[in-house]
Amino acid sequence: MTRFSFELHATDGRARTGKITMQRGEICTPAFMPVGTAATVKAMKPEGVRAIGADIILGNTYHLMLRPGAERVARLGGLHNFMNWDRPILTDSGGYQVMSLSELRKLTEKGVEFRSHIDGSKHMLTPERSMEIQRLLGSDIVMCFDECPRADRPRDEIAASMELSMRWAKRSRDGFDRGEEHASRSALFGIQQGALDEDLRRESAQKLTDIGFDGYAVGGLAVGEGQEAMFGVLDYAPEMLPQDRPRYLMGVGKPDDLVGAVERGIDMFDCVLPTRSGRNGQAFTWNGPINLRNARFAEDQEPLDPTSDCSASRDYSKAYLHHLHKSHEILGAMLLTEHNLSFYQALMQKMREAISEKHLSEFAREFRRNYLGD
Amino acid sequence: MTRFSFELHATDGRARTGKITMQRGEICTPAFMPVGTAATVKAMKPEGVRAIGADIILGNTYHLMLRPGAERVARLGGLHNFMNWDRPILTDSGGYQVMSLSELRKLTEKGVEFRSHIDGSKHMLTPERSMEIQRLLGSDIVMCFDECPRADRPRDEIAASMELSMRWAKRSRDGFDRGEEHASRSALFGIQQGALDEDLRRESAQKLTDIGFDGYAVGGLAVGEGQEAMFGVLDYAPEMLPQDRPRYLMGVGKPDDLVGAVERGIDMFDCVLPTRSGRNGQAFTWNGPINLRNARFAEDQEPLDPTSDCSASRDYSKAYLHHLHKSHEILGAMLLTEHNLSFYQALMQKMREAISEKHLSEFAREFRRNYLGD
Repeated sequence: MTRFSFELHATDGRARTGKITMQRGEICTPAFMPVGTAATVKAMKPEGVRAIGADIILGNTYHLMLRPGAERVARLGGLHNFMNWDRPILTDSGGYQVMSLSELRKLTEKGVEFRSHIDGSKHMLTPERSMEIQRLLGSDIVMCFDECPRADRPRDEIAASMELSMRWAKRSRDGFDRGEEHASRSALFGIQQGALDEDLRRESAQKLTDIGFDGYAVGGLAVGEGQEAMFGVLDYAPEMLPQDRPRYLMGVGKPDDLVGAVERGIDMFDCVLPTRSGRNGQAFTWNGPINLRNARFAEDQEPLDPTSDCSASRDYSKAYLHHLHKSHEILGAMLLTEHNLSFYQALMQKMREAISEKHLSEFAREFRRNYLGD
Repeated sequence: MTRFSFELHATDGRARTGKITMQRGEICTPAFMPVGTAATVKAMKPEGVRAIGADIILGNTYHLMLRPGAERVARLGGLHNFMNWDRPILTDSGGYQVMSLSELRKLTEKGVEFRSHIDGSKHMLTPERSMEIQRLLGSDIVMCFDECPRADRPRDEIAASMELSMRWAKRSRDGFDRGEEHASRSALFGIQQGALDEDLRRESAQKLTDIGFDGYAVGGLAVGEGQEAMFGVLDYAPEMLPQDRPRYLMGVGKPDDLVGAVERGIDMFDCVLPTRSGRNGQAFTWNGPINLRNARFAEDQEPLDPTSDCSASRDYSKAYLHHLHKSHEILGAMLLTEHNLSFYQALMQKMREAISEKHLSEFAREFRRNYLGD
């Protein structure tokens, strides 16, 4: 059986559509991966996540190592068995969250020492330990352990951090390969760093390509630099990575971010936005985001999308969703999460079709006209 | 089309099994009605409520009159349309909640004046207004507006309160009948009061029967008197009500309460216990309730019920449910609510079968042996 293959079906400008094949299933690209931080896509049953069209979900190493713990997940048969999701799971390395969520962290060449934000317990993450945790979880796509600095740090800091991440990428590769049985049925992705600096991005891409990975992420974006700066990097960064490998833009993004990034050659995305927004009353629609808590929806009898295949989008009025969110009812979070994830999957599906039919730029123009009022 | 009919299929001792037929669907009895307080069975999609076997749900007049408001629900096409549930809905009268939840209430012959626990706004509930609200909601089974005193009040207070409730029952009947179009497709239930006093219960039953209702509730129980005292009342109270009408025990109860009440001739129940407990980590099982937050479940790979038709009971380990509840994940509330409601429906189904086969006492003995360790 194929461990990992990536097949390009069509291109349109820099945009690509294709398919990743792995043992646990196929992933149509460009793909959006719902985020299942703590072994659950919040407010969704796994069959619901599949029903709205997700081929793959993301799990967070940092959260899972702290609770319930990687060794415990392994004893319970791995993450797929634990959470009742049998399709591919990509796990991040913990590198990003350890820097943004943990306390009293100490960064050295070896790795990062930190205290849990849950109970203050002391932990260490290194490239080797990150690979071990992702193996214990039974991840299908494993991410290299890296450091992700803020994009506005001085160039010498960005450069030093990128070089550290590249040394860690090599140690990740070696650590991953030592887990032979797991390595024989999963994939390892490298992560390009270098913030907003084209030369550093090129150097990072070269170092990663020299090591060799199944796929390549563009890291260090969506950290507050803004869409224009992000698109600026995406105008050159993806092209530095191997054509025949999937390119994953980590932590992105808003629907218009996804469209612009697909136009620039990105194949995979993950983001908490559709799930987190759903819990906060925000719904994504083809005419832009709306907040259902707004009083103007109190007697709006229209559903979010009467033409949708998704029951949450089609069978409940905005007035009802308004009521549920005003009343802090769990069903409000459930329905809007489902709607938003369904919207994201529909957007990816439309982009895959548009690329196949070579009219992505028309689709993107029309999308932006409706969504952004451009 | 039949407005309301109740057909008895079998009896076993005092226990009965049968079927209520209404325009929106049939209700197999003995029936358990999941509680949908604020136009949602908390943490459940309506199709999920139906899938676990519920024929009817309960809505709360007090909550709905305050938010989103009865007139608003009517403008939005009624409660069924609003919440996307097309089967029967029973609504309570608001009488119980107004006494337990509202602030600064003032009880007079006319009704109850009170302030909303949500925003302090001033409201008045009378038998006539309660009937109007339940009509605006589009309720299938309307409950009389009554007063429910604590069972430990002095006898003269209990008697005066029961007599007030009987005068209100007549005003409820008249108010309901004035809503001709709604009355032609819905049913009205009277509520017996009298706390733990057999004479008052008999007097109440007689007054209600003289007025005439489609069904009769045993009210004023499950208010802290304990199971033994409740069963004491149920040893005589249901028999005072017409044989050919359904008997509804309001706000009950624990699984062993349901079994004992069915043995004593009750046909319908509602209770927040399965839903509320589910959100708090408590699961009902044939061997008694357990709390999934308990550390002993952290690595328990068994599901709650491997033989269940319900995916929530069958496809997730106790270890996973433990993790979700420790992590305060919404999915934890979703899965345990579904499991608990499914358990309650399975219990009712088993009792209906046992009555049909005339072995309810054997079933009840076996149930109590496993569930209570009796």
